[in-house]
Amino acid sequence: MDNKLLRDILNKYKAEEITEDECLKSLATLPYKDLGYAKIDNHREIRTGYPEVIFCQNKKPEHIKGIVKSILNSGGENVLLTRLTKDIFKEIEKEIENIEYFEDAKIAVANRVFRQFSNSKIAIIAAGTSDYPVAEEAAITAEVLGNKVIRLYDVGVAGIHRLFSKIDIIHEAKVIICVAGMEGALLSVVGGIAKAPVIGVPTSVGYGANFGGLSALLAMLNSCASGSSVVNIDNGFGAAYLASMINRIGE
Amino acid sequence: MDNKLLRDILNKYKAEEITEDECLKSLATLPYKDLGYAKIDNHREIRTGYPEVIFCQNKKPEHIKGIVKSILNSGGENVLLTRLTKDIFKEIEKEIENIEYFEDAKIAVANRVFRQFSNSKIAIIAAGTSDYPVAEEAAITAEVLGNKVIRLYDVGVAGIHRLFSKIDIIHEAKVIICVAGMEGALLSVVGGIAKAPVIGVPTSVGYGANFGGLSALLAMLNSCASGSSVVNIDNGFGAAYLASMINRIGE
Amino acid sequence: MDNKLLRDILNKYKAEEITEDECLKSLATLPYKDLGYAKIDNHREIRTGYPEVIFCQNKKPEHIKGIVKSILNSGGENVLLTRLTKDIFKEIEKEIENIEYFEDAKIAVANRVFRQFSNSKIAIIAAGTSDYPVAEEAAITAEVLGNKVIRLYDVGVAGIHRLFSKIDIIHEAKVIICVAGMEGALLSVVGGIAKAPVIGVPTSVGYGANFGGLSALLAMLNSCASGSSVVNIDNGFGAAYLASMINRIGE
Amino acid sequence: MDNKLLRDILNKYKAEEITEDECLKSLATLPYKDLGYAKIDNHREIRTGYPEVIFCQNKKPEHIKGIVKSILNSGGENVLLTRLTKDIFKEIEKEIENIEYFEDAKIAVANRVFRQFSNSKIAIIAAGTSDYPVAEEAAITAEVLGNKVIRLYDVGVAGIHRLFSKIDIIHEAKVIICVAGMEGALLSVVGGIAKAPVIGVPTSVGYGANFGGLSALLAMLNSCASGSSVVNIDNGFGAAYLASMINRIGE
Amino acid sequence: MDNKLLRDILNKYKAEEITEDECLKSLATLPYKDLGYAKIDNHREIRTGYPEVIFCQNKKPEHIKGIVKSILNSGGENVLLTRLTKDIFKEIEKEIENIEYFEDAKIAVANRVFRQFSNSKIAIIAAGTSDYPVAEEAAITAEVLGNKVIRLYDVGVAGIHRLFSKIDIIHEAKVIICVAGMEGALLSVVGGIAKAPVIGVPTSVGYGANFGGLSALLAMLNSCASGSSVVNIDNGFGAAYLASMINRIGE
Amino acid sequence: MDNKLLRDILNKYKAEEITEDECLKSLATLPYKDLGYAKIDNHREIRTGYPEVIFCQNKKPEHIKGIVKSILNSGGENVLLTRLTKDIFKEIEKEIENIEYFEDAKIAVANRVFRQFSNSKIAIIAAGTSDYPVAEEAAITAEVLGNKVIRLYDVGVAGIHRLFSKIDIIHEAKVIICVAGMEGALLSVVGGIAKAPVIGVPTSVGYGANFGGLSALLAMLNSCASGSSVVNIDNGFGAAYLASMINRIGE
Amino acid sequence: MDNKLLRDILNKYKAEEITEDECLKSLATLPYKDLGYAKIDNHREIRTGYPEVIFCQNKKPEHIKGIVKSILNSGGENVLLTRLTKDIFKEIEKEIENIEYFEDAKIAVANRVFRQFSNSKIAIIAAGTSDYPVAEEAAITAEVLGNKVIRLYDVGVAGIHRLFSKIDIIHEAKVIICVAGMEGALLSVVGGIAKAPVIGVPTSVGYGANFGGLSALLAMLNSCASGSSVVNIDNGFGAAYLASMINRIGE
Amino acid sequence: MDNKLLRDILNKYKAEEITEDECLKSLATLPYKDLGYAKIDNHREIRTGYPEVIFCQNKKPEHIKGIVKSILNSGGENVLLTRLTKDIFKEIEKEIENIEYFEDAKIAVANRVFRQFSNSKIAIIAAGTSDYPVAEEAAITAEVLGNKVIRLYDVGVAGIHRLFSKIDIIHEAKVIICVAGMEGALLSVVGGIAKAPVIGVPTSVGYGANFGGLSALLAMLNSCASGSSVVNIDNGFGAAYLASMINRIGE
Repeated sequence: MDNKLLRDILNKYKAEEITEDECLKSLATLPYKDLGYAKIDNHREIRTGYPEVIFCQNKKPEHIKGIVKSILNSGGENVLLTRLTKDIFKEIEKEIENIEYFEDAKIAVANRVFRQFSNSKIAIIAAGTSDYPVAEEAAITAEVLGNKVIRLYDVGVAGIHRLFSKIDIIHEAKVIICVAGMEGALLSVVGGIAKAPVIGVPTSVGYGANFGGLSALLAMLNSCASGSSVVNIDNGFGAAYLASMINRIGE
Repeated sequence: MDNKLLRDILNKYKAEEITEDECLKSLATLPYKDLGYAKIDNHREIRTGYPEVIFCQNKKPEHIKGIVKSILNSGGENVLLTRLTKDIFKEIEKEIENIEYFEDAKIAVANRVFRQFSNSKIAIIAAGTSDYPVAEEAAITAEVLGNKVIRLYDVGVAGIHRLFSKIDIIHEAKVIICVAGMEGALLSVVGGIAKAPVIGVPTSVGYGANFGGLSALLAMLNSCASGSSVVNIDNGFGAAYLASMINRIGE
Repeated sequence: MDNKLLRDILNKYKAEEITEDECLKSLATLPYKDLGYAKIDNHREIRTGYPEVIFCQNKKPEHIKGIVKSILNSGGENVLLTRLTKDIFKEIEKEIENIEYFEDAKIAVANRVFRQFSNSKIAIIAAGTSDYPVAEEAAITAEVLGNKVIRLYDVGVAGIHRLFSKIDIIHEAKVIICVAGMEGALLSVVGGIAKAPVIGVPTSVGYGANFGGLSALLAMLNSCASGSSVVNIDNGFGAAYLASMINRIGE
Repeated sequence: MDNKLLRDILNKYKAEEITEDECLKSLATLPYKDLGYAKIDNHREIRTGYPEVIFCQNKKPEHIKGIVKSILNSGGENVLLTRLTKDIFKEIEKEIENIEYFEDAKIAVANRVFRQFSNSKIAIIAAGTSDYPVAEEAAITAEVLGNKVIRLYDVGVAGIHRLFSKIDIIHEAKVIICVAGMEGALLSVVGGIAKAPVIGVPTSVGYGANFGGLSALLAMLNSCASGSSVVNIDNGFGAAYLASMINRIGE
Repeated sequence: MDNKLLRDILNKYKAEEITEDECLKSLATLPYKDLGYAKIDNHREIRTGYPEVIFCQNKKPEHIKGIVKSILNSGGENVLLTRLTKDIFKEIEKEIENIEYFEDAKIAVANRVFRQFSNSKIAIIAAGTSDYPVAEEAAITAEVLGNKVIRLYDVGVAGIHRLFSKIDIIHEAKVIICVAGMEGALLSVVGGIAKAPVIGVPTSVGYGANFGGLSALLAMLNSCASGSSVVNIDNGFGAAYLASMINRIGE
Repeated sequence: MDNKLLRDILNKYKAEEITEDECLKSLATLPYKDLGYAKIDNHREIRTGYPEVIFCQNKKPEHIKGIVKSILNSGGENVLLTRLTKDIFKEIEKEIENIEYFEDAKIAVANRVFRQFSNSKIAIIAAGTSDYPVAEEAAITAEVLGNKVIRLYDVGVAGIHRLFSKIDIIHEAKVIICVAGMEGALLSVVGGIAKAPVIGVPTSVGYGANFGGLSALLAMLNSCASGSSVVNIDNGFGAAYLASMINRIGE
Repeated sequence: MDNKLLRDILNKYKAEEITEDECLKSLATLPYKDLGYAKIDNHREIRTGYPEVIFCQNKKPEHIKGIVKSILNSGGENVLLTRLTKDIFKEIEKEIENIEYFEDAKIAVANRVFRQFSNSKIAIIAAGTSDYPVAEEAAITAEVLGNKVIRLYDVGVAGIHRLFSKIDIIHEAKVIICVAGMEGALLSVVGGIAKAPVIGVPTSVGYGANFGGLSALLAMLNSCASGSSVVNIDNGFGAAYLASMINRIGE
Repeated sequence: MDNKLLRDILNKYKAEEITEDECLKSLATLPYKDLGYAKIDNHREIRTGYPEVIFCQNKKPEHIKGIVKSILNSGGENVLLTRLTKDIFKEIEKEIENIEYFEDAKIAVANRVFRQFSNSKIAIIAAGTSDYPVAEEAAITAEVLGNKVIRLYDVGVAGIHRLFSKIDIIHEAKVIICVAGMEGALLSVVGGIAKAPVIGVPTSVGYGANFGGLSALLAMLNSCASGSSVVNIDNGFGAAYLASMINRIGE
């Protein structure tokens, strides 16, 4: 997976610093830590420049705690815990120092170290006040990953002058995250006026035939505005992670 | 169904102009003509102010011809045939005089009589050139029903200045039909700037996850713009019929 | 968005009452109030004749309170809060005077001012007793927006004489709202006998394969009755808002 | 499966008219004819009072021909072939005598023998002229199975007086088949006025969001009218078969 | 709707026993009682031979109580309340005498009067023990409507000998209700061996891709066994009501 | 169903050890125990080599208890209770001795008898820590049915080296169960490298458009890796049962 | 991916038979042939014991030809081409010798070499004659892969004695493929009586609400019969491939 | 929309170079050309750096020709026509010089001018040979927009060594497009090993339960690999357009 690593292992083997069996084993076991219920990919930060992220939904509190501790023990910084309910955070907090919780975003960050890798910005544009939690999941994630964030909330297309009044600010962003539920139309309008790539986050906000975000998801996938793409429903984290990758380009 | 009619029948009965059995029969048989495969509602025009409309999809050519003739024989005017393919029109044309075909709209009108009941206007706003056939179904229907029509085509939200340049024209309309496929965002933007009621027509135009118009339909149903409602996918006719009813109010 | 407003700003600019920068800023910032989590569209009432409406579902109580206060502070009247649970209303009530709650409709109205812009009526026809909450959402909304409302509840098609006994009343209405769950057949029957436009509101009431209102929604969209259109599932508010717009025509 | 048959086999065995092995084989092989690609259930008519029916869709012409011949060879009467296209019928007709084709219904009947088991009637009520083929599939099936049939076509709810004018005829029926596409509302209205069981056949007729009959199917399943049930989309045959079973009760 | 009633009214009118206005009013107001939130169809029992049934899901307790009282006051017997939770029953019980609750079936019967209109039987066959509540909804309904009921529970196709051991009992029934969740295969097997009509009730019992009963619903609709039809998911009541209608034929 | 059993019954009959009626009855009543709400298939273990399994979801506690007791009374061993909540287990435990509960797997085993029919192994590979409960349902089931189990958890494709490091272990298995939610990609990757049959278990774990496991289910069904098949969403039990059958082959 | 291969490469490297760069390249390029539009996995047969299979649907004829030739050139035997239309086969046949076509199965086999790896059998049980093409896809695949095949066609559950008469034959099979459309009930019944693993193949055969095989797919996934699993709709090939893997176990 | 443009117009107005009316008109009519059926956004290239693109599906040939000519007349370069069938291309070619057609990609380019804005690369990775047309739509689009493209086709996860052998090439790309049908697993695997952003394009390639690309779409949306997003089914163009935007960053 990582050519340099392979080359090192092979060199050691050729130089007889390691045996054939050790060599084989090294090739097979790129670094991770096995907790039984979880295999922690310590190699990830080196490989991708980002720390391991823990998606907490459906995980048992004991498992979450075990994983966080293991990552922190091997020196992890800015460890993100997403989809973490307040109740489980309170349990975790008892055993782990230096952990911060963002209630709206349902995110915790352990061992936070502030870094900012550039001055370019990610704009997070949300259609309505009801989209607030998802927008915040994106915003906090982006900030923890070292980005400058512009928040533009409640600028949905039904009062489109609110959006247009912010065009200058929108043009400042290197990448845009567009959070919208209901009919998800905001993505198309933003995509039509922006010069930067736009990542759509459909939300599950809405009346009946929203069907848990399906209406916004389909609308965003079918957007007539070129230069946009879509992540999963309510997946503010995923959008911010991708935005962060794009935002680092050329820095 | 129609109190006046009932009252007349009862008065005749009381006055012994008709027998009990005749009375009962009259009550039961509000006027329509039975062709076996079809029961033509001649009473409709009196009742609703609109002639019978023939939805031709799935109907056999013989049935369509039979129905048109029957309506014309009882004095029908402006008889609309919707979803009529060119091939079947050509067959019909051989036997029926005074019938006109609109190929893009897939509509024919038999025994057309030009009337215009008012000066107020219906605006038909279409997002893309691909929505042309559905928009024309709406436009021709509205015109045949006696309305003035404003056509604004290809003003989708990805180049939203095209729409905004027409705001004055939009504000002239008493009712607006908004035709859009893909993400259907046009309805929300139009709904946000218009003062008139807006009727959305989702179209089945688009890439893969359009799912035959489902994306535009859900988007329009979930529109955050108050003052709008939706008709069936590709149903330009239905939108125009409703728009015509609203356009007549107060005239 | 508003030609007159634009013209005024330009006139002032030409007359050198405002500088170029002030002009540009004015053009960009059509009036709204920015609360961070919300941008309140104070210009809306002037633009559309209707006050801002607050859709409370998924919003945090603090946000709702902040928005209401902001609107009231800028002189808002008849401020509608829809999808408001009783619990959150009770919290709000503590801080805001002159606010009334309609429990069945889950609607609150702040700073209510009774107005009635005309004598024409909106009929609200509901199929079953289970549709009561949605019908009331429509009824209260319509009344707050200044309309006369006729309520006809529990007149579903399985006992169709209940509906027909009210035909005279139905014919009095200038626009009709038809609320139905299950198979949504009421829309088609009402649409067939009414001369007024009919707005369908599918509800999520029913047995298993109702699928959260999908059965009624699809039925209403596919209604064979011309002159009807549909709003989102359980969206009594949207239907009433549109009905109110139609009801004002010609007044 | 059939107690009497079992008893006979056992009696023969006990009386030593057949050996144990013959007995076992008899028990195992209730009569059918094995053609390899098909196993023809000759025992069916005795068991259920109805002949084998051949569902021709997706079957190869050779297979269809083979099955028909086999049934006719074992004395089959009134052999129904459903979903048979005209092209394939023409191929079959060359090799099989005494076979009649109903083009609208896409049904053929081989070796027809007219029987009528009672005077009670099945009413087939269809909403629109477009539903004609499905209604005819039901009507022909019911007639071939020995029933009197009343056809009431094009009596959809948008002009409901057409239906009510026929109430006396409807009340004559012992069982009712209700064929409707689009919103399928006819079932609910008929179910509300009829005293007889009503079998709904949703059809795939309609505009976009009909989704191949799904709208009518869901509507009928959710019908508020008690005393009704539903068969598969466009399944006129299935409805007629069931109606025939009910129609024979008490005769 | 009811020819005899019409005839009476007309006769009285002709005989000048009633005035034209009284006549018109009588025609319009076939008997029902208007409670505002509900219109009780007292005429129903005369018209269909069955009392009004109250579907309690989504109804407010006050409304339920009001409706029951109204029906009882006009002499209603065997008043069925379906989908009634125990909690609401307990509230109702305080104010209404002579009401009995069936907890598994979630049914209450007010003013029960035991009648049995015939000796023929309805068989209720359920696939698994988990289908028990739906099967009991059917069974209690059928019994209250005056039918003899045979209960055959937990005879699903995975151990098909349990079903076949009861074939004699199955053949005794005049009509069969088949209750099954998961893959709903029981309907096809029962339909293949029975001579009586079979009504399928898909249930929402099962693992993940059951999708709330969709798997069983689709399976039953697509059953290859002729002579069957389907009611809504978990609709034991509807199946029993229809079965009761069929069971009365010829009695 | 069981030829040997049939042969015995027939021999006894022929030898006049049993009468015709006894013979018929024996044929009809292959062994099961009827509890009314359940028919327990005691014959199953003899027939298939596996004990009866009780799917507890949707079953009443009394029914569950009754069924367990009945099976135990007839000598049942290793009686599995799946989808059993802790609360209901606690109730059951009071009355039944020798019952063990696995909380993560939501499985209880009554009268456990340890057996291991072979040395070949079932590998259970799970994509993420969130899939733990489903994986454990499979693991416990497989162990109770007498299999050796290899657990490989949290080896999802986003860090694919974790999977590849275990290739030797994977190649040891005779059959593989692959548990994954979200995009279910693990099945395809495992299927591509394994020589053994792979059974996919989609789980309902994931963000919004997971739609209750639908995304993983469809992905697994469409897997491009030959040699795999799929069971129902979250159905760890079903996968383990099938795997156990395959694992016994050739032992 | 293949430990032995890795070991060889490393040994050569250590022995200095290959350079570091050659070693790295060898590690990276496990054998396949790159045609640009396709990368042919020649290593596959060694790895899995099965040759490459070409899924022809959606592939261009030139591409198909190129792939076949490439595989044959490297010595491929029993090369399977699935989903191959007759027209494209005829084109291919011109350029490739020794290729055989199975029209019903839409399968071609190039360079066929008859082998049979064991005497154990795969039973292919199909519900109806319409399922013939899918069943044949499975049967031909299984035979080409060296299995003995038992064909049992048209034994659907509506005439279940046809199935039971073959129980002895069913019990002979080591693994069973069950092909069924419509309601897919056959899988549950077969699963209930068989001792061998059962692989379900839902087919897209049926009336309206079959929805392209969805009804059978969901039914099979929800089957109450333990010991079964499911492949994709109409995927006879996939079922046979898996069945062949299971059939080889222990041989 | 474009502050500079606004400023220019206002300056001219203030300097009295244009009148108030001219000013207003200029503000309203940002440049586009109105063809009635289409409004061509000539301003687009200036605004976004990309020319207008013509989505040809559902458009009439006359309309397509008119639009191309209009764009070319105003000096358009590299005009892309997507989803263009060969037949319509042939018609267009007659009237327009200098137009090139890419048959696999169904793309034409008019007035092509070769430019390459940087040396960084877009990798297009396709799972199977059947995904070729969609991959080529992406590749041609990217090249016309001035990007260097790496094509890696047929590297699906079932033979994952084919993908891993190309890791060095993958790491060269600044942005990756991942094209896959069936289960769409490739996105997750590529996302797990790549450091660059990955754009998924689900394709409609596959067996039955692919449901027109839905399986791959859902899988990609639910991908556990961070740093990825998704465009519409088969939308190679959209992915390439977005990739091109990202690829230009920092150049």
